[in-house]
Formats: sequence, structure tokens, C-alpha cells
Amino acid sequence: MPNPVLVETFRGEVVENRHRGAIAVCDPRGAPVRAWGDVEALVYPRSAVKTLQALPLIESGAADHYALSSAELALACSSHNAEPEHTQTVHDWLIRIGLDEEALECGAHPPLDDRTAAAMIENHQLPGRVHNNCSGKHAGMLTTARHLGEQTRGYIERDHPVQQRWFDVLGDLAEVDMRRLPWSYDGCGIPVIAMPLRAMATAFARVAVPDDLVAQRGSAIERITTAIGEHPFMVAGSHRLCTEVMKLTGRRVLVKTGADGVYTAALREQGLGVALKMDDGSKVASEVALLEVLNKQVALHADELAVLADRRRMPVTNTRNVVTGHRQPALLWD
Amino acid sequence: MPNPVLVETFRGEVVENRHRGAIAVCDPRGAPVRAWGDVEALVYPRSAVKTLQALPLIESGAADHYALSSAELALACSSHNAEPEHTQTVHDWLIRIGLDEEALECGAHPPLDDRTAAAMIENHQLPGRVHNNCSGKHAGMLTTARHLGEQTRGYIERDHPVQQRWFDVLGDLAEVDMRRLPWSYDGCGIPVIAMPLRAMATAFARVAVPDDLVAQRGSAIERITTAIGEHPFMVAGSHRLCTEVMKLTGRRVLVKTGADGVYTAALREQGLGVALKMDDGSKVASEVALLEVLNKQVALHADELAVLADRRRMPVTNTRNVVTGHRQPALLWD
Repeated sequence: MPNPVLVETFRGEVVENRHRGAIAVCDPRGAPVRAWGDVEALVYPRSAVKTLQALPLIESGAADHYALSSAELALACSSHNAEPEHTQTVHDWLIRIGLDEEALECGAHPPLDDRTAAAMIENHQLPGRVHNNCSGKHAGMLTTARHLGEQTRGYIERDHPVQQRWFDVLGDLAEVDMRRLPWSYDGCGIPVIAMPLRAMATAFARVAVPDDLVAQRGSAIERITTAIGEHPFMVAGSHRLCTEVMKLTGRRVLVKTGADGVYTAALREQGLGVALKMDDGSKVASEVALLEVLNKQVALHADELAVLADRRRMPVTNTRNVVTGHRQPALLWD
Repeated sequence: MPNPVLVETFRGEVVENRHRGAIAVCDPRGAPVRAWGDVEALVYPRSAVKTLQALPLIESGAADHYALSSAELALACSSHNAEPEHTQTVHDWLIRIGLDEEALECGAHPPLDDRTAAAMIENHQLPGRVHNNCSGKHAGMLTTARHLGEQTRGYIERDHPVQQRWFDVLGDLAEVDMRRLPWSYDGCGIPVIAMPLRAMATAFARVAVPDDLVAQRGSAIERITTAIGEHPFMVAGSHRLCTEVMKLTGRRVLVKTGADGVYTAALREQGLGVALKMDDGSKVASEVALLEVLNKQVALHADELAVLADRRRMPVTNTRNVVTGHRQPALLWD
């Protein structure tokens, strides 16, 4: 059975586009509290698990050794806009660990932030690896490798201990066997491993309730989520939903986007984890669906919902700035 | 029942994204020769019917009166890239009919062509209405209004004779009552009318076999499709599928994209019309699905298919230029 329609875009009175997908809402024991669609099908989490990929940075002692700031820890979990504050921080951080941008093995792409991308064109600057939205994650991986005396060259390879460490963290929190699941390469070149949405949501339920984990894991989660709550700009940037939600909620509602229509959330007040994937990979639809889940799970307060109203029921305008319709949630609730 | 999956994107061995949609292939009597999904559901054709919207330009005598070139006629049917050749032609054309860019009532947006858009940023130029991908269509509408002595201001309004004329043409060819169907505003500000895919495909089957139409309509279609076949660049531009297909086939296979995942085609050798719409509005998926239909209907020859191979089974690469998977057709055939 196909996944249900989660988001619809109206033009006038007619639905022009329909976005299907699946959502899992789980508690820390892994039980689905709510589910739409097939939450057992394999899905690539993409960047939506960066917070968990950053845990070895703390658990290995690397963050302490290099006295990483909480802004840097937040950046290690980011899909950033490559605004000057993001790239400057990555640049300085790499120098502090005795490396430079050449050590980054992610590819280059123009900044996600349109204004920054336009400014680079105006200044005849070409995008470098530091502008890759994943450069903070890569800086974190390099930091751990340096601290543990591992070769930094080739740190993106599946067999490198840097990658193996986050396989262990995510496999542990999601209760999956990371080495038996199908894998491929992510946009930035590191491995990406397909897993059920239910497992992803379970991992984030455990992020939401870290007290029940072994002490070291729990305190690493506390430290990294505190950093994210303190620096929501570092996790994404201007006009980005992740940043806007955490600006409003701090770390009470931790959300993270992943490419091709993925979102995860850790709801600390409710003690729940959320994972969602749009079948068609639509990013904008994933945002609408996420906000509707946060709304219905009462994770957002009324004043927060009001600020985000245009993100949940999103006006669609044409080139004349006429509102031609809306993109809005279509999830059915019991 | 949901529409079938027409296109899948693999990452490694796992399907990461699925794109559903509907396709109608009709003969000129309106009989569906082949159909996927619900071809009776209402769909906005968007820019995929521009060729038909341009017919009043010829039938009214305006094209002859102003001695429009075949490049201008092709541009009247275009969703162009706003490359210099497109915008210069619209600019000169408007002056020749005693107007200028101020008369265009479409909104401004950056050129669809990335290189042209970047050059504008480098030169500190702001996009104007002439850069709207629909500015050729608007120039055509203004030309007809001028020729018939109608007020040009407000030509985009639903009640203006310029709009009413193409309602009549499309209503006639598609055999629908354009004034009773739901409508809204298109991206460029003119009305857009929702209709069944089957009706759209029927209209394009009649474009494919214009001999059976009344003489004036048939010869107008011959003239406009000849112009398109002669100037495929004017209809879209660099790296655009419409241009690439018609560069290879002339007007033997006339294809036209529309926003939000729409495509139409007139297959002159087969005497068939095609209309397709991706449920999720994905443009890239609509291109893959279109090429697969053209392939299976044997509308493209082997050497043409070879040139377009990477468009039909499209490699997906990451920022390191590693191929992580493919976007490929998933249509089932009897």
C-alpha cells in the first residue's frame, strides 16, 4: 500500500501537487506511538542524524582536548548555509587542530544561502569545500581522528575508524545492525546507511530522554544538545526552519533536516522521537509535514506556532506576488 | 487508487525517491491509446499549452500584420531561459509593435539559465519582466491586442479578449468547456484552467494531425509548429530538454514543459498526443517519464535516444562527482 498523502499544494480550489510520505513517532523503548505509512521500509537518514554522528567527537575526548566551543559543537551537527559566520568558524577550527581546508574531503558546492551565494558571484569567488553544508561535520570528524592519532587522509571511507564510530553510536541508539544494512555514499562523500524510520525515531526518542542511557552517552547527548540550543544559527542559518524552530524552543524541540525530504526531531518534553521521509524527496513538503506533527504532538506552544504559521500553511505566490494557493498539511489524525 | 510510480531515484541499491503521476496518450478522436493513472482528474496544464495559446496570434492576422519572424513565433510558445538571444528578441519585438517592456504584465524573476543569472549578478543587473520565462508568450498576447485595437493594459485579466481567445482555441481542440472548469492564476499572472490530462492529450493529438481540422486552424498549427521546429533554441534554451528534443527531431516530436511536473507532446509520425503530470510537481521526474513514453511509443529513433540516454536514465552525482545512483523510469508496460 502506498504511503499516505502528507502535504498538498492548492492552486485556487484544485490540488496541484500531492506529497506522500511516512512518519514514525516513537518512545525510547522503540514502540511507535503514532505512525503514518510504512515505517519499516528502508530510508537513508542523510543529514538528519548529524547530531548522532557528532557524539564520538565528545565521547572520544577530542572536544575537551581541543577545547571546542559550543558554537563549534553545534556546527559539527549542522547542514549550514555557508554564511560568513559558518565558514569562518570552520576555517579557524581546522587551523586550531593543525589542518586546513585542504584536509576536508567533502566536495564543493555554492552556499545554500542565496545572499551569500550571490555575494560570492559578485566577488568572483568560487565555492570551496568549506562552503559545503557538511563542512562542520567533516571538521568534527577530522578533530576526532587527530585526537586519536588516526590518519586524516581518507577519513570519509567506510572502513575508517571515524565512520565506524558513528556506525556504533547510531546502531546502538537505533538498535540496528549498521554493518548489515544497505549503504551508499552521501552527498558529501561519507557513507550513508539505509534504515527503517521506526529505528531513526527510536534513536531520537533516546536523545529526548538521555537519562536512561549509560552515563557517558547520556552526558555527551546533554552536551551536544545544549550546544545546539545555544547556537541555533550554527546548525543551519538565515531563514532556515531548523534554526527558526530552535531559536524559539532552544533544545526543547530539536529538529534536523536531511536531504531528499527527511526530518528528525527529539521532543524533550514529551520524551518522543520523530522521523519522517517524503517519498518524492521534497524538502519544502517535509517542513510542512514536520510542523504539523509538532503541532499535533503539542510539542510547540501556541505563540511558537503563531510565529511559524506561514511555514505550516505556506502561501504560494507567483511572480506578480499574487497568492495563488497554499501548501498545507494533509495528514489524517485519529 | 493512487497514480502509479513513474520514476524512481536509486541511491546505491535502495530506492530513495519515488515519483507518481499520470500519463495520457490519445489519438485525435480523443480515445486514450494508453493511460497510466487517473487521466480524468483535473490538472493545470501551466506552460505546456503555450503552443495553443499562441494560435490566436496567427489566426487573428496579427503575425502577418507585424511580419513576425519564425524566431518570434517560436518565442511566443516558449518558456525561455532569458539568455541574451531570448530577451533581445522580446525587447526588439515589443518596440516594433509600438510598446516596450513596461507593457509586459508578467512579474520579474531571475533567468532560468544559471549562467545568465550569474552574469546578471556579476553586472549588478536586476531581473526585469523581460527575463520572465513567459515574456515571449506575453509579447505575443500584446501583439494580438495591438493588431485588433484592444486595450493592452490589463491583457492578463481573465475577461480580456486576449485570454478569451485562447480559451476558445484550447476548449475547441481539447473539447472542454473552458468557462466551467476551475481556474486560478498562473506563475506569470494569466489565468490557468484545470482540465483532464486526457483532454490535453487529445488537443495535442490534433496538433500532431492538423489536416483534419478546419483549414484556418490547421494552417495556423502548421505555421507555428514549423517555426518551433526551425528555432528549438527559442522555445527553451541551453541544456533544456525541450530544445534538445526538437534540435534532434525538428517538429517531428514537439514537446513542451509546464511548471510543476507537466509535459505535453505531439507525435506527428504516430498521430498521437501525450500529456503527463507528476503528482509531486517534480520537473526532473517529468523529463524522465516523458522520454520513456517517447521511447516506448517509438517516437524517437535509436540515434536520438542515444543522445538523450543520460536524460532518460539520469546519473545522480554527489559533490565529489561520484555517481551515487540513477533516476530512471519505472513505468510498467503491458
